[in-house]
Amino acid sequence: MKRIAIIDIGSNSIRLVLVQINKSDSFSVIDEVKETVRLGKDMTIYGGLNPSRIEKAIKTLSFFKCLCEAQGVTEIIAVATEAVRKASNQVEFINRVKSELDIEIRVLPGTSEAYYDYFGNINSMDILNALLIDIGGSSTELIWVEDRTLKASISLPFGAINLTEKFSLHKVMDEETEKDLKDYILSSYKEIPWLKEVKNVPLVGIGGTIRNIAKISRKKNRYPIHNLHNYQTTAEEVVEIYNMAKIKDQGERKKIKGLSKERADIFLGAAGAVVTLFEFLGLKELYVSGCGLREGIIYEYILQSNLPLEDVLGFSINNHILNHEMNLHHAHQVWKLTECLYNDLKSILNIDKDYYKILKTATLLHDCGIRVSYYDHHAHSFYIIANSKINGLLHKEQLMAAYVAALHRKNDFKVDLEKYERIINEKDIEVIEKLAILVRICENLDSGVNSNISSISCVIESDTVIISVKSKTDPILEISQALDCAASFEKIFGKKLIIQSSAS
Amino acid sequence: MKRIAIIDIGSNSIRLVLVQINKSDSFSVIDEVKETVRLGKDMTIYGGLNPSRIEKAIKTLSFFKCLCEAQGVTEIIAVATEAVRKASNQVEFINRVKSELDIEIRVLPGTSEAYYDYFGNINSMDILNALLIDIGGSSTELIWVEDRTLKASISLPFGAINLTEKFSLHKVMDEETEKDLKDYILSSYKEIPWLKEVKNVPLVGIGGTIRNIAKISRKKNRYPIHNLHNYQTTAEEVVEIYNMAKIKDQGERKKIKGLSKERADIFLGAAGAVVTLFEFLGLKELYVSGCGLREGIIYEYILQSNLPLEDVLGFSINNHILNHEMNLHHAHQVWKLTECLYNDLKSILNIDKDYYKILKTATLLHDCGIRVSYYDHHAHSFYIIANSKINGLLHKEQLMAAYVAALHRKNDFKVDLEKYERIINEKDIEVIEKLAILVRICENLDSGVNSNISSISCVIESDTVIISVKSKTDPILEISQALDCAASFEKIFGKKLIIQSSAS
Repeated sequence: MKRIAIIDIGSNSIRLVLVQINKSDSFSVIDEVKETVRLGKDMTIYGGLNPSRIEKAIKTLSFFKCLCEAQGVTEIIAVATEAVRKASNQVEFINRVKSELDIEIRVLPGTSEAYYDYFGNINSMDILNALLIDIGGSSTELIWVEDRTLKASISLPFGAINLTEKFSLHKVMDEETEKDLKDYILSSYKEIPWLKEVKNVPLVGIGGTIRNIAKISRKKNRYPIHNLHNYQTTAEEVVEIYNMAKIKDQGERKKIKGLSKERADIFLGAAGAVVTLFEFLGLKELYVSGCGLREGIIYEYILQSNLPLEDVLGFSINNHILNHEMNLHHAHQVWKLTECLYNDLKSILNIDKDYYKILKTATLLHDCGIRVSYYDHHAHSFYIIANSKINGLLHKEQLMAAYVAALHRKNDFKVDLEKYERIINEKDIEVIEKLAILVRICENLDSGVNSNISSISCVIESDTVIISVKSKTDPILEISQALDCAASFEKIFGKKLIIQSSAS
Repeated sequence: MKRIAIIDIGSNSIRLVLVQINKSDSFSVIDEVKETVRLGKDMTIYGGLNPSRIEKAIKTLSFFKCLCEAQGVTEIIAVATEAVRKASNQVEFINRVKSELDIEIRVLPGTSEAYYDYFGNINSMDILNALLIDIGGSSTELIWVEDRTLKASISLPFGAINLTEKFSLHKVMDEETEKDLKDYILSSYKEIPWLKEVKNVPLVGIGGTIRNIAKISRKKNRYPIHNLHNYQTTAEEVVEIYNMAKIKDQGERKKIKGLSKERADIFLGAAGAVVTLFEFLGLKELYVSGCGLREGIIYEYILQSNLPLEDVLGFSINNHILNHEMNLHHAHQVWKLTECLYNDLKSILNIDKDYYKILKTATLLHDCGIRVSYYDHHAHSFYIIANSKINGLLHKEQLMAAYVAALHRKNDFKVDLEKYERIINEKDIEVIEKLAILVRICENLDSGVNSNISSISCVIESDTVIISVKSKTDPILEISQALDCAASFEKIFGKKLIIQSSAS
């Protein structure tokens, strides 16, 4: 066990993330603190950081340092972005932090910032091709991802704070101001040679402005899942939100449901940058990401590599298994058997899509609820799977996986269709029930938690499914327990279930 | 870390509980398996255990032994109760288990069984005076607890299985049979010299029959909390449930919502024993316990003592803190400050009862949700506190504690009044909000997680509350963060909040 800290000195806020690294490179965030220092605001006429904001930054960093010490952090990685990057008194500030606090700040060039955004997201989202946008306080990064590689990137010198200052956006925006704002942003976009080639991909949004857009949308739509990572909305709705906000003054904006009061004053310029990008490229979808620069740094540290993970979901699931101190062998044994059953029974599963990822997640994490309490742990597994950040799954997939896991012991966990009607429907529930019965059979086939069953194979007959198991020792108890699922199996698939031992 | 197993060879089922013992004697159940072997059924005419049931028991124990090995259990404690206790072939059975499986079975005398029931409950419920009843397959223990000590106990030789056999209760019960059953039970009760002295105490019920009564009641009342431990109902409702079940045959009984199909055939006799006890003593309330013999053995093992815990709630909270790997120092520091605030502000809290236990639970466990995920951990803390077995709290107290913890970071966690209307009302929510603001202030006063604040004291003035803090180093950041709660404080208490540093 080891604890590291990432300090991200941005133009709007300074953030601290404490990460605990557990065995086999699994990790979890154990604390996160944000101070809205706004280093990028009120820069001096000579382009320097404002002295009173420097003082606030030093106090914040000093507090972060104490917190790191109290929490047993052994390594601090501190990075700074646009405000410090362009500050004329950059060296002075960095030296002061080094001498007073013994913290070494690495000032990231725009390309590095874009790279970390890429690396944070490619390892935590199911992205093949996409355009990423990270809107910070004083800069905006655009990153073009093709075939999971970083094809091109740029850091533009505008963000939520300096756009607000430049165009006085705390007031209600008049038409002329809006035109000026959009023209300014658009001309920047137009100067990027590769940008207009980006077509028909989702926009992946990073940063506080995007999260606030998502929160406003979530409130508006009474969306039932709280986790913002992987939240999806449309360009159309983003434009609607921007139009709704632009006719309000700062005070009225503070009342917009979902918009944080701290961000109401600097929301409009950054939202305008997103809207202008949608309009410029004709993109249709926004995927919200909860990961960015800091996660990029964490993944670089953990993986000791700049190659993206090959299996984002697999890494994320494994991370949860290790963090929740689950029985790794049992999880993988049940998955080995379930995967086999899923492949062998595809013809009678009669499902329209591939539910491999959902089934894998549910099976590997079916016992994670034991971490809350052994009693009713299937229900706790539902809660944990539905409410954790599982990288590589859409919200719908995550929710379906949670339900499959919830049914791993018995039939009686009820799907709250009313609550989740925006996300899953009756047909999805049929799929959930089919997948769950596979997990239940295989969980029972490892009821001894000792991987006694070495392999299984299925034969499908007109009115029967025969599962043959090979095992190390007599599998009589495992088979008898798995057969408890026979009635449910027959009800769902219309076939009798036979499980038999075959020669080992 | 160490794992032990308790095997409980009862007359109805054989159960295995795997317990993981973590640091400082904290522990958690990591697996539980039950096989309905019914050793107490079909005894031979010579009073011996039935050979085919012995075979089933041996197979079950052999499987349990494998499971223990696979799970790294280093110590197995196996006990047997009435069926084995009275069996003429007891020694044979025990020797066989010893020689074939190397498991030593301790046959518990009735008084020991009663003692463990007492010890399991006195350490897991807030009991001062009570009558405990544990209805097993072939015996029923009655335990009189006065002033938290075991005053008297008895083990009666009837339970769910042998009452069913003796009175052929799988059928619809006619009036005559019911009279015979109740007379038989009542005459046993009347022979217990101390029993009629038991007055005006709650009946604490242990065992499968009681849990099934609770499940039926829970379904009937659409009770929103799943945890059965500490579920409360009335003698009146138990009689109602018994009357409803007694006019059904076994097939119809299986359809009763909440009654497990496995128990439908043996429910009536045991339920009759509870009803008869209520009628005999005129008791009014039933508290359902999820703890009994097995927990008694676990507590004896953990505490290495037969003295009951002095502070049941404190031990349980500490157990959760350690099992969830929370920051013990931070939890206790925040509680030290919150306790002080609570005592100093009693006059303006204006609450009708003592909410000390709720506040203590919420404060000490406010961060437990980090175990699920750091993000939204206040919401996860709500889930964990509401859904764990927290010993020493009533359900209402537990739910209120969960809400207080959920509000430890901000105001925006919503109480689902509709769901919980049977348990908490608007007035309770006012209390929750008052307590939560105290926790939030004190959590911020340890935002450095380093116990910088050594003590606090309050002065209440007509329109102001002044909190003075003594600290090791300048507490400027802690105070500034705690003052983020000032607006909420003023809204709730109608007084301005001032926090100031006083000489250390």
